[in-house]
Amino acid sequence: MSSKLLRELADAGCVVDNPTHLLSEDELAERLASCDGYLLGGDEYASRRALSSAKNLKIIAFLGMGYQSFVDTNAATEFGIAITNTPGTLSNSVAEFTIGLILNSSRKLYLYASEYAAGAAGNEEKQHDLSALQVGIIGLGGIGVRVAEMLRHGFGSRVSYFSRTRKQHEEIRLDLKYLPLSELVASVDVLVLATPATPETVGLIAAREFASVQPGLLLVNPARPELVDPGALLDALENGRVAYAAFDGFYDEGDLVSRLKAFVPNRLMITGHIASLTHEARDAMARKAIRSILNVLATGKDSDIVNPHHAV
Amino acid sequence: MSSKLLRELADAGCVVDNPTHLLSEDELAERLASCDGYLLGGDEYASRRALSSAKNLKIIAFLGMGYQSFVDTNAATEFGIAITNTPGTLSNSVAEFTIGLILNSSRKLYLYASEYAAGAAGNEEKQHDLSALQVGIIGLGGIGVRVAEMLRHGFGSRVSYFSRTRKQHEEIRLDLKYLPLSELVASVDVLVLATPATPETVGLIAAREFASVQPGLLLVNPARPELVDPGALLDALENGRVAYAAFDGFYDEGDLVSRLKAFVPNRLMITGHIASLTHEARDAMARKAIRSILNVLATGKDSDIVNPHHAV
Repeated sequence: MSSKLLRELADAGCVVDNPTHLLSEDELAERLASCDGYLLGGDEYASRRALSSAKNLKIIAFLGMGYQSFVDTNAATEFGIAITNTPGTLSNSVAEFTIGLILNSSRKLYLYASEYAAGAAGNEEKQHDLSALQVGIIGLGGIGVRVAEMLRHGFGSRVSYFSRTRKQHEEIRLDLKYLPLSELVASVDVLVLATPATPETVGLIAAREFASVQPGLLLVNPARPELVDPGALLDALENGRVAYAAFDGFYDEGDLVSRLKAFVPNRLMITGHIASLTHEARDAMARKAIRSILNVLATGKDSDIVNPHHAV
Repeated sequence: MSSKLLRELADAGCVVDNPTHLLSEDELAERLASCDGYLLGGDEYASRRALSSAKNLKIIAFLGMGYQSFVDTNAATEFGIAITNTPGTLSNSVAEFTIGLILNSSRKLYLYASEYAAGAAGNEEKQHDLSALQVGIIGLGGIGVRVAEMLRHGFGSRVSYFSRTRKQHEEIRLDLKYLPLSELVASVDVLVLATPATPETVGLIAAREFASVQPGLLLVNPARPELVDPGALLDALENGRVAYAAFDGFYDEGDLVSRLKAFVPNRLMITGHIASLTHEARDAMARKAIRSILNVLATGKDSDIVNPHHAV
């Protein structure tokens, strides 16, 4: 994090200690015991034990969304420690990257650039305008909404969506069509996954879903790879149900994954979980976390506290 | 061209002859001598000699925009033959592809996907949101306008432009800023070329222009490569004035071009002149050309006639 952003904490009278290496549980416990607020932005896990000696700690500001994997929420709540996250700060960056993945799938830029570089250009085929395609979005949180805005306002694509909670305001504002998951999957030309990986969503797109899709589907997954069953994806690429897939972040290595990677770049594009890797997203996250620390230390309150039962 | 589209001509009572190979000048002359309308969509050149025996020919409908390279316009006009082209039909396809080139430059998807495929992921750097960038467009014809619409409505980027003819209506409608060419080149983060190659525009971006750009420029060229001086581009990539360049179509081979291609994929992305290669664009072109043939044969008039002095 830039010292310019951290200066706001220093200006507010905070002593800022910015560790430069991954802390062990003991090291983290020691830090937590000596501070009032903690900005959790690395790969450390704030366990019950690490939190138990943090007598003055009022807030853990988590840099991002998936705080559950990095802090024992129950323990923090018991100890009266507020946890905050940074909703909305990376939606635009991830949505832009998602449009990049969609265009690389629908117009095959990565494939045709790779062929050009290999001296093998000349066999390019006609593709379809994105404006002529029906796009389905699974998940209409901050990222899904921003993708829908770009598709509707920028490209004029038809957009349908599925979300656990129906969002009628967004349906009207953006002219989106709500469909049950099975109908969405079966009806679209491009399927975009914009939902977090939870026990309920792992394997959300599996053999049954691929069997129902329009042959030649473009599958665009800027979310976690685990939303898609890798064996079913391999089958769907082999039998042509999926014409092109684009993932930002991929499965752990293995024989199945090697067989999937054989489809790169002709039918599959993979980037290394970088959809939110922009100055704007990371600075906005940091600013939001710093603001939450200052708010909680000053007032005990902040709009991004995620454990509502904490004692203040 | 699909037989479905040609059926409209047949349905109107035309005898449709659809050659399957590139015609010689003599073969073309023979065809032109025997028909009332000709849809010119291949690489043939309709020379004065080929046109001179076309006693019944009323119209040459050119499939695309750059008819000057494919028909002797003066001869056609003298002989009373209307020439039409198909404006606007590929603007959306090229504009979508251009947004793909921009995102591949601003977020480096092609580079990072190539690195992932090579097992070299992990050194990705923070990039910038397109919404935070200032984009400059040279040329505000159909393609430039559509690119501006996508950037303004879809991404919220700030957009400025240069065009020989100032378009104040578009400035107001899309909140665009008009700048003289030298000021535009010197002030933007992303420079998009959307102007045809003519004797006046070849080498439009050369050493003097690169010397004035913001260091780290993203240069996006969906138009003809000749708009950019290749030696000056090489210098600009070598000295860092240009951080990334994306071209759809590239210069003819040679030593200079080999040195440029050494920047692929890290700093340069090239596709093979495919920005308009979509079913939607090609079908719209064919429909417009067929409509022009039917109009001219029926009435002598069509809104896409480009040689106004032809005798009707």
